Amino acid sequence: MNNFRILEIKQSVFEDNDNQANVLRERLKEDKTFLLNLMSSPGSGKTTTLTKTINTLKNEMRIGVMEADIDSDVDAHTISKTGVKVIQLHTGGMCHLDADMTKQGLEALGTEDIDFAILENVGNLVCPAEFDTGASKNAMVLSVPEGDDKPLKYPLMFSIVDVLLINKIDVLEHFDFDLEVCKERVKKLNPNVEIIPISARTGEGIDKFADWIREEVRKWNQV
Amino acid sequence: MNNFRILEIKQSVFEDNDNQANVLRERLKEDKTFLLNLMSSPGSGKTTTLTKTINTLKNEMRIGVMEADIDSDVDAHTISKTGVKVIQLHTGGMCHLDADMTKQGLEALGTEDIDFAILENVGNLVCPAEFDTGASKNAMVLSVPEGDDKPLKYPLMFSIVDVLLINKIDVLEHFDFDLEVCKERVKKLNPNVEIIPISARTGEGIDKFADWIREEVRKWNQV
Repeated sequence: MNNFRILEIKQSVFEDNDNQANVLRERLKEDKTFLLNLMSSPGSGKTTTLTKTINTLKNEMRIGVMEADIDSDVDAHTISKTGVKVIQLHTGGMCHLDADMTKQGLEALGTEDIDFAILENVGNLVCPAEFDTGASKNAMVLSVPEGDDKPLKYPLMFSIVDVLLINKIDVLEHFDFDLEVCKERVKKLNPNVEIIPISARTGEGIDKFADWIREEVRKWNQV
Repeated sequence: MNNFRILEIKQSVFEDNDNQANVLRERLKEDKTFLLNLMSSPGSGKTTTLTKTINTLKNEMRIGVMEADIDSDVDAHTISKTGVKVIQLHTGGMCHLDADMTKQGLEALGTEDIDFAILENVGNLVCPAEFDTGASKNAMVLSVPEGDDKPLKYPLMFSIVDVLLINKIDVLEHFDFDLEVCKERVKKLNPNVEIIPISARTGEGIDKFADWIREEVRKWNQV
């Protein structure tokens, strides 16, 4: 028996996604719920990163997680072990979430008792970058094995994120990945992005990401 | 000065993609050009795999490559060093290629002198699986760092491919990736798929992939 719900999301009927996103963001602001939209390629380590981050923060804020996938519930299973509120969203084949789909997820999750909500988006560097989900901030995980040329090939994604986690730095020596070159490529697209190298496996850098979240949650709740 | 062309692909206007794909496949059959559609997540090693494979096969067949990306021409640069015909396709933000877009690419590449054409699709495990490009066969690269749970999360992609290359097996010991479990998950979705573990970096397994291509090209040209 699962201790989380699986929600089959309906495809959005709204044409004006940007407007829907702004309405949702206003509501989250009033409710004092900070929503982080977490994006990446498949297999970059979003779920492991989340697990470590949740375990660092769960005693100081109320956390809720929406795991979006085409299929399966393996990520919701993994996150449920941290003890925080979690729901699995099935996108019905859709390659991204928009604001209305995010709203359906938030309503099923229930945000009245949540300070920090996380949307783990579908693993995809293209489509999720094109749709404002209504999140307070956008985060991205890029992992070392993917290569330092990804900002050149998927520029939109790198240009819309507020924080970029460069994950799997524990295996840096086994791959041709130049951390400084990668950072320069990202900063050229997005000068204000915060870049945090991490290893979700060893826990390196998770404290810095937790600090970033603490500060953003604090700012979100300022009147 | 580049020794390849960059083509800005126009968005497709055809509603019936499956029909367009079948027409294109017929034409390729008549022209004796075998087209392989190569798909994967961003950063799984498609381009390195292609480089090694092309160097193995280029003296026995005439090869042409279409590199599809949202932006940049880094992959066409890399492939052009092998000396084979190459063209960079820019998808104008599109997350996949359909049959008409593939046709535009083939016409720009010119297939009259090509036995083996390759379409390196946009790095994405979702959308490219939904669109028949008109290719003779579909190939996919999954890399070890992405994790052995990917068949559970992106079942459509794994169910439509004819050959699956499991790449980066040289770093298997540094990741929690169970090769046998992964194979079982894939075979459950797609019993007839050929699975070849490779390391594009060390060259391991590339000979087996080259053998698979030789056999498929031979079958394609049978009357």
